[in-house]
Amino acid sequence: MPVEPIFDVAHLGHVELLSNRFDESLDFFTRIYGLKQSGSEGDSVYLRAWDDYEFHTLKLTRSDTTGIGHVAYRVSSEAALMRRVAAIEASRFESLGWVEGDLGHGRAYRFEDPFGHVFEIYWDTRHYDPAPEDRPALKNLASRFHGQGASPRRLDHINLLAEDVTEFRAFMETCLGSRVTEMIELDNGRLGGCWFTVNNKTYDLACTEEHGGGQGRFHHVTYATDQREDILRAADIFLENGVHIETGPHKHAIQGTFFLYVWEPAGNRVELANAGARLILAPDWKPVVWTEADRRKGQAWGLKTIETFHTHGTPPVGKP
Amino acid sequence: MPVEPIFDVAHLGHVELLSNRFDESLDFFTRIYGLKQSGSEGDSVYLRAWDDYEFHTLKLTRSDTTGIGHVAYRVSSEAALMRRVAAIEASRFESLGWVEGDLGHGRAYRFEDPFGHVFEIYWDTRHYDPAPEDRPALKNLASRFHGQGASPRRLDHINLLAEDVTEFRAFMETCLGSRVTEMIELDNGRLGGCWFTVNNKTYDLACTEEHGGGQGRFHHVTYATDQREDILRAADIFLENGVHIETGPHKHAIQGTFFLYVWEPAGNRVELANAGARLILAPDWKPVVWTEADRRKGQAWGLKTIETFHTHGTPPVGKP
Amino acid sequence: MPVEPIFDVAHLGHVELLSNRFDESLDFFTRIYGLKQSGSEGDSVYLRAWDDYEFHTLKLTRSDTTGIGHVAYRVSSEAALMRRVAAIEASRFESLGWVEGDLGHGRAYRFEDPFGHVFEIYWDTRHYDPAPEDRPALKNLASRFHGQGASPRRLDHINLLAEDVTEFRAFMETCLGSRVTEMIELDNGRLGGCWFTVNNKTYDLACTEEHGGGQGRFHHVTYATDQREDILRAADIFLENGVHIETGPHKHAIQGTFFLYVWEPAGNRVELANAGARLILAPDWKPVVWTEADRRKGQAWGLKTIETFHTHGTPPVGKP
Amino acid sequence: MPVEPIFDVAHLGHVELLSNRFDESLDFFTRIYGLKQSGSEGDSVYLRAWDDYEFHTLKLTRSDTTGIGHVAYRVSSEAALMRRVAAIEASRFESLGWVEGDLGHGRAYRFEDPFGHVFEIYWDTRHYDPAPEDRPALKNLASRFHGQGASPRRLDHINLLAEDVTEFRAFMETCLGSRVTEMIELDNGRLGGCWFTVNNKTYDLACTEEHGGGQGRFHHVTYATDQREDILRAADIFLENGVHIETGPHKHAIQGTFFLYVWEPAGNRVELANAGARLILAPDWKPVVWTEADRRKGQAWGLKTIETFHTHGTPPVGKP
Repeated sequence: MPVEPIFDVAHLGHVELLSNRFDESLDFFTRIYGLKQSGSEGDSVYLRAWDDYEFHTLKLTRSDTTGIGHVAYRVSSEAALMRRVAAIEASRFESLGWVEGDLGHGRAYRFEDPFGHVFEIYWDTRHYDPAPEDRPALKNLASRFHGQGASPRRLDHINLLAEDVTEFRAFMETCLGSRVTEMIELDNGRLGGCWFTVNNKTYDLACTEEHGGGQGRFHHVTYATDQREDILRAADIFLENGVHIETGPHKHAIQGTFFLYVWEPAGNRVELANAGARLILAPDWKPVVWTEADRRKGQAWGLKTIETFHTHGTPPVGKP
Repeated sequence: MPVEPIFDVAHLGHVELLSNRFDESLDFFTRIYGLKQSGSEGDSVYLRAWDDYEFHTLKLTRSDTTGIGHVAYRVSSEAALMRRVAAIEASRFESLGWVEGDLGHGRAYRFEDPFGHVFEIYWDTRHYDPAPEDRPALKNLASRFHGQGASPRRLDHINLLAEDVTEFRAFMETCLGSRVTEMIELDNGRLGGCWFTVNNKTYDLACTEEHGGGQGRFHHVTYATDQREDILRAADIFLENGVHIETGPHKHAIQGTFFLYVWEPAGNRVELANAGARLILAPDWKPVVWTEADRRKGQAWGLKTIETFHTHGTPPVGKP
Repeated sequence: MPVEPIFDVAHLGHVELLSNRFDESLDFFTRIYGLKQSGSEGDSVYLRAWDDYEFHTLKLTRSDTTGIGHVAYRVSSEAALMRRVAAIEASRFESLGWVEGDLGHGRAYRFEDPFGHVFEIYWDTRHYDPAPEDRPALKNLASRFHGQGASPRRLDHINLLAEDVTEFRAFMETCLGSRVTEMIELDNGRLGGCWFTVNNKTYDLACTEEHGGGQGRFHHVTYATDQREDILRAADIFLENGVHIETGPHKHAIQGTFFLYVWEPAGNRVELANAGARLILAPDWKPVVWTEADRRKGQAWGLKTIETFHTHGTPPVGKP
Repeated sequence: MPVEPIFDVAHLGHVELLSNRFDESLDFFTRIYGLKQSGSEGDSVYLRAWDDYEFHTLKLTRSDTTGIGHVAYRVSSEAALMRRVAAIEASRFESLGWVEGDLGHGRAYRFEDPFGHVFEIYWDTRHYDPAPEDRPALKNLASRFHGQGASPRRLDHINLLAEDVTEFRAFMETCLGSRVTEMIELDNGRLGGCWFTVNNKTYDLACTEEHGGGQGRFHHVTYATDQREDILRAADIFLENGVHIETGPHKHAIQGTFFLYVWEPAGNRVELANAGARLILAPDWKPVVWTEADRRKGQAWGLKTIETFHTHGTPPVGKP
């Protein structure tokens, strides 16, 4: 009898990013990229896009390095949380146990992929409650559209690097019940990249092959804009603010999203993306498989992938 | 113990529309609105948007009247289908039993709401398999982007009329496990409208109060465009083709979608909409409640709702 | 022998607006509408859009009333200035003589239309010289794109009210050498409105019939955005800031511009518009004539013209 | 005494392109690029964009080679035509004398630049008169917006190659009275490129340095779209139709236009561009000068200029 799809995990919740140029990074994420600060505690500032419903989707933490602190997914219910914990504990992947949570959510269960990225899942969250001056004119928005900088609408996805994407895929399917929507099969038979989702978004996490010998490295985090035009406008904002534009705007062949990649001051790669009306609605969606021959055509409209896209991750290899 | 969310139903599958000016309606839906014809049989033509993954999302049927034939949802698995059938049969709502399906899908289970709209759920479907000349350049699309007419990307939602929206809400929650994302509470305590979803779309079906004494009437069907600009461009296409533009382009206060409403030649209302990056990701989303006072502000940017929007449905009242 | 076209006047230069709620108006024009302040002197602040090449295009003056102070056009050369002065002095229209100029330009020649609007023409101007922090990343822009509020690109046009549009037309043709690109002919034979240009813009000044018995009244001033999407985004900014949105976004039938009208805090009407790639390139362009029957179809996509658009001008009738 | 600006030439009128794959080129320009055919005679088909006011802006001619036949500008009046003819005949540049015109216009005066490109100027033209089925819904458009393919609005500019851009500049200033709006000064002191206009468009003709030893070669012709989104949409149309996309969509640093370059089947380069609301309104505009150091930054958002952009012209060097 066919296995039924798993709906235990609701969505990507937040990501913790490390910065060794904290003040500049915070200025970038708030004034230029256009997230809002909802709180701070210790070495961390809690940030969210104007229509993210939770207290935060980005936890920016002062550090002596860069890259990712942890990745968090919110589950569908308390019962779903316990089912996932049981599945993880029964798996070959490493459990790290419960943590108490922080300003943004309650207790969370942590575990780790074989490449050193820390994940957590949680049910008990803090819905963002806007102060009077942050209340939107329309009550179905999470907070006021402030129009500051690029001002994307919500967290979209993250991209991690792993030396063995096939093994990373097993981790995602086992621990989160993620589905693969698209992937790259290299000529040598290995997986070059894999795009995962737990819901109708075309992906909430991508994993691409680590070529630099790094461990637990981070490729990028992405927020979604309502329109492609928002990204073209953002490109001018980045230009005027001296932000390093790595590549784009252009359209990905894989997943078809319109994209723009920049590096925040500490070197973490940050994307803006727009998927248009594309969703994965089919419950029996078959992963789309891209070959190296396909990839040689470049991005959707022919742009060649820039070299740093294959080599730059955070933290830089050889750094702590 | 809290009830867990239901994930049995995957997405709105298709709608059957009736036309008493069939040839003109077909010309509208293909040449001007920009759907593609995937087949025909008997009195019906099967249509789909270029990125709809199934064989059809609109079944246009020659008739002596207008309005809706039936609404179909696809379920998440065969087991989910049987769970839904059991739930419907255990409910107070009317079962119509199994039908054999048509060109677009296999057997389906039919049932009816208290206002005369026929619903069906099915698992066994026909994935659209493009002929060579309809194959897209990018393999993650369902078919070639043809750029004909308005050419929306995919089916988005439908809107039905019911004399008692509260009762319709019970029907949707019981039979499909739908969630309410937004609703209108009238000053008299009645529900004026209710927006439902079974997945991360902000809604796939809306029900608004029937004021004209009709039975089983249809308000509109909507396809999604990738960008708002597609809708502005479509407005010019409708204008040049003499299509009746009822209202828009503008932005809804409720659900925040950018919209444009026209009437196809037989009088059925058809919408184009763009939701930007808005999704309902929260598993514990609380319905947004709009009051009559809220509604008096008009649409998002102040446009007053046009009178025919409250009165025009299909078929016209008093017609067969 | 046919008369040759006149190229003496180069473009609309600036407009002086009066406000009896000056501080609120200034906050609107800078923080929300997104103009930049280049200077202030006495009761006036000098404002410009980020790509306006002159020191100012809007002079906002503290007053006990609203409406327009004066309208200014820049000429093509010093010799052209003297030709225009000669033409005006030889005409039946009223000369007001030379003024010394202000922070934004040198000496200017003033004259008045029969309805009390003061015009001036000037050659000697002050090119905007951005301070280091206002220098654009691309040297072909007049200043940095700051992305503040609606942030339109440049001044586009103004609209005045006159009791006799035919007489106003004679004034524009005689004094400025303006061409009429489009006009409304009423059933009673009168001109209901007239759209003028001195260059390739489709219009830089419109005159519509005064119905309220006012003298020298102002209808609106408009800045141009690069894209229609900028206007849709601005609508959300206006909404979140409690600005009165009068009508739009929609597309004009006349001139085909995409528009949005709001009232600044003192009541002066302000527009954002986008003409797309439309220009008047034909040197022998024949005015497009719209009838009342045409106008009854509403705007391009059918929106009915809102009543206040016919009645609201500044200052309000009966006020000083 | 300062020389006054020259307004004799009104606008770029049309360009004649040669194709040695005529049927494929014609299919490209009509079905995919979206121009309309207004007539044909002999080896030529006459094409125009839907809002071009003249009978044609592109004359496509069957040939055994590619590249340009001639470039035509329309003047401001009959008297202006005679002034230009006198200026050309008094110059050191080569006069070719009067030709009788063709389907699209009356007599024209021909002359040649030092690099073998044939120019003509004319006053007597044929305004496009749409057949009933081609009449637009709005009377201020030249013809119906048909929405076929990319469907740009109007002719924008052309780009020619010349071995000595400084000499070409003298030709344009002397013969047409063109103004230089932007230019590239190479480290060796030569002009690398020059952008010219006769009106408020930022440019109607660009000349860049010929590096391949060709004579009278053509770089590209460009039509303008109303919005940047039209260009993003066109990229998908080109992709689905197997058209070679050379580079873009992206934004030029020089002139700031949003662009997309493709090669039509015979190899002639064709662009779509959108300038937003940017115009050259200043009568005393000083040319913007770009250095090689500036150019090394790439296009506006950092895209490196693709190698073929510097080498590919039509006809190919060494071909007839």
